[in-house]
Amino acid sequence: MLYADYNGSVPLLPAVRDYLRRRLDSELFANPNAIHSVGQRLMQGLERARRIVAEAVGCHPDQVLFNSGASEGISTVLYSVLEFSPAKKKVIITSPIEHPAVAKALAYYEREKGYLVKRVHVDGAGRVDVDHLRLLLERHSEELALVAIMAANNETGVLSPYNQIGRACAEARVPFFSDTTQLIGKDAFNFEASGMDYAVCSGHKLGALTGTGFLVAKDPTTLQPLIFGSSQERGLRGGTQNYLGIETVAVAMEDFSTHLDGLKQLRRARLDFEKAIRRQHPKSVIIAEAADRLPGTTLIGYPGLHGQAVQIELESQDIFVTTSAACTDNQPETSEVLRALGVSDDLGRSVVRISFGHRQGEAEYARVLSALSSAYNKLTRIRSY
Amino acid sequence: MLYADYNGSVPLLPAVRDYLRRRLDSELFANPNAIHSVGQRLMQGLERARRIVAEAVGCHPDQVLFNSGASEGISTVLYSVLEFSPAKKKVIITSPIEHPAVAKALAYYEREKGYLVKRVHVDGAGRVDVDHLRLLLERHSEELALVAIMAANNETGVLSPYNQIGRACAEARVPFFSDTTQLIGKDAFNFEASGMDYAVCSGHKLGALTGTGFLVAKDPTTLQPLIFGSSQERGLRGGTQNYLGIETVAVAMEDFSTHLDGLKQLRRARLDFEKAIRRQHPKSVIIAEAADRLPGTTLIGYPGLHGQAVQIELESQDIFVTTSAACTDNQPETSEVLRALGVSDDLGRSVVRISFGHRQGEAEYARVLSALSSAYNKLTRIRSY
Repeated sequence: MLYADYNGSVPLLPAVRDYLRRRLDSELFANPNAIHSVGQRLMQGLERARRIVAEAVGCHPDQVLFNSGASEGISTVLYSVLEFSPAKKKVIITSPIEHPAVAKALAYYEREKGYLVKRVHVDGAGRVDVDHLRLLLERHSEELALVAIMAANNETGVLSPYNQIGRACAEARVPFFSDTTQLIGKDAFNFEASGMDYAVCSGHKLGALTGTGFLVAKDPTTLQPLIFGSSQERGLRGGTQNYLGIETVAVAMEDFSTHLDGLKQLRRARLDFEKAIRRQHPKSVIIAEAADRLPGTTLIGYPGLHGQAVQIELESQDIFVTTSAACTDNQPETSEVLRALGVSDDLGRSVVRISFGHRQGEAEYARVLSALSSAYNKLTRIRSY
Repeated sequence: MLYADYNGSVPLLPAVRDYLRRRLDSELFANPNAIHSVGQRLMQGLERARRIVAEAVGCHPDQVLFNSGASEGISTVLYSVLEFSPAKKKVIITSPIEHPAVAKALAYYEREKGYLVKRVHVDGAGRVDVDHLRLLLERHSEELALVAIMAANNETGVLSPYNQIGRACAEARVPFFSDTTQLIGKDAFNFEASGMDYAVCSGHKLGALTGTGFLVAKDPTTLQPLIFGSSQERGLRGGTQNYLGIETVAVAMEDFSTHLDGLKQLRRARLDFEKAIRRQHPKSVIIAEAADRLPGTTLIGYPGLHGQAVQIELESQDIFVTTSAACTDNQPETSEVLRALGVSDDLGRSVVRISFGHRQGEAEYARVLSALSSAYNKLTRIRSY
């Protein structure tokens, strides 16, 4: 089978599987907070993992907080900032293309906590309009609680100019949270250089175990515990640490960091693939083609066809893709993200997403291209009857 | 090595290790919400796990919500009930022996949200005084938001009369949340018969993967999402489901449910062990000896000795125990729980906890007894110099 849904979830990396096979034979299972040496060794492993993660994302180990994944990280950041913000700071700036984990949380703070949510403009390729952001920052300068703009879009792969956003937020002295769920482990990233105050990561988007992840905070003292407990994670995240998951996060981050050259090859292979698609399937549209995107994400539309029909054709050839984000997959409609880009329903309903990681490249794209071509030919023939 | 800290964390069960070894060779890794067949198969596995868990704990599958573990479950229940409670319902009844995950969360609601926290009496063996509870229920009948009393204490293993508490709460029409973290997977349990409105579980206390767990709610519509996201777990818990962890929770629960007879043997072996301890170590004290306790938990005190010295002696014989709960382990003081039982500092500082699960018994206790005897003889001899 060829799995091509890395934005949905990254299968356990070979390095993680090897690690776990060895790990299952060991006796090192205990509570890492225990006083005995088994617990202490697990705690040392956990802190080693924190240093590996910190080095890989460009921050200090003290700025890394382990948790159950990006959704928890997002809810923790929004809770910490918005539940404890001064009364006059009631404006949030966000984008219209956020993941539901951010969008639904912000809708809650708007509905229940009196926040006003302002959306920065994005262009037809899904790129955030930084001039408009500066205008909003100026207009609401006294009332700003938070800027929440994602770093890489899960559906289109479009990268936001987060460095510029970071600088603009720093100048305006407003905290900048960026949903980096699709960025970390899919493209090069340096937290310190990004200007972000908060970033998040899910282990399963790295090829580590599911149910793991971390949050990076420039100043961890601004965080509040969403999950109460003892002194784990310096009192900021209760619950026995998921030491096994954390170990695999470190393994996956190391694998990624030592194969950054794979990203260049991936990006080149993707661009060649997209050129071939446009050449071989005249009616195809590469969504956000002009934008700077993640190395391994392509969202292709075939106006007039149904994305799910294409997906099923690919699956019959043992290739697994989705029609949009996993979380909104079951809606046979144009996604909110594509609507924000001004995509028509005819195009929006027709998309399939092909997404890979740092260990895929030419060979995988060649297989997808061939399968897509036969799907395209079959489905357009059916339509022309 | 002999690991005897099952209340701290249960090492991966042999059945779970076998499952994972096979699982690592499979190709089934994806987002369980994805439209493709890999995602769908994972989702089917997840729902099968929910049915297995429901059957094992005596509830309906719809009442089971998967999450990252008991601490998250506790914070979710308290947030759902206390953040959205009517203004006049401002009294919480709890016990003085709760785990920090409950105690610290309640302290937050008391400090920040205007709640009044009342503590039910416990006797010298840590048993909840149900008559006092009834008195409190009557006295505050109009203002009660919640009763939060644990089912089994992590340090002493003492079981609370949760069935009686459940009945009293039902009569008083106040929701009853019981921290069942140490009960589920350590002793027989039936949610429906318990009279609880909410119960919680951590996978790592079952011998499943770390960072997993579930919450059981009599009426899940009373829950609010603590972690925002898409429609995962019916919109009540955002984030890609930890399907691998959830699969291992099902494996561990099945292993436990099919070896319930192991609990009888464990309890008998523990009682024999405690008798031998009292006989062979005249100065020893079994904390809460008179109370009904978890099958495999013993907290032994040696007044005059230091618990950590005993722990280190055992460790030199490759036996791993703790001096109290993992989360408070590093405090060389009498724990809050033991203080609530009226335990003196001389005794409180001297305790070691031996805890096992449904797959241990006579053989393990024999090894601990022999090691404890040599530690006892050595340390009392040192003292008498």
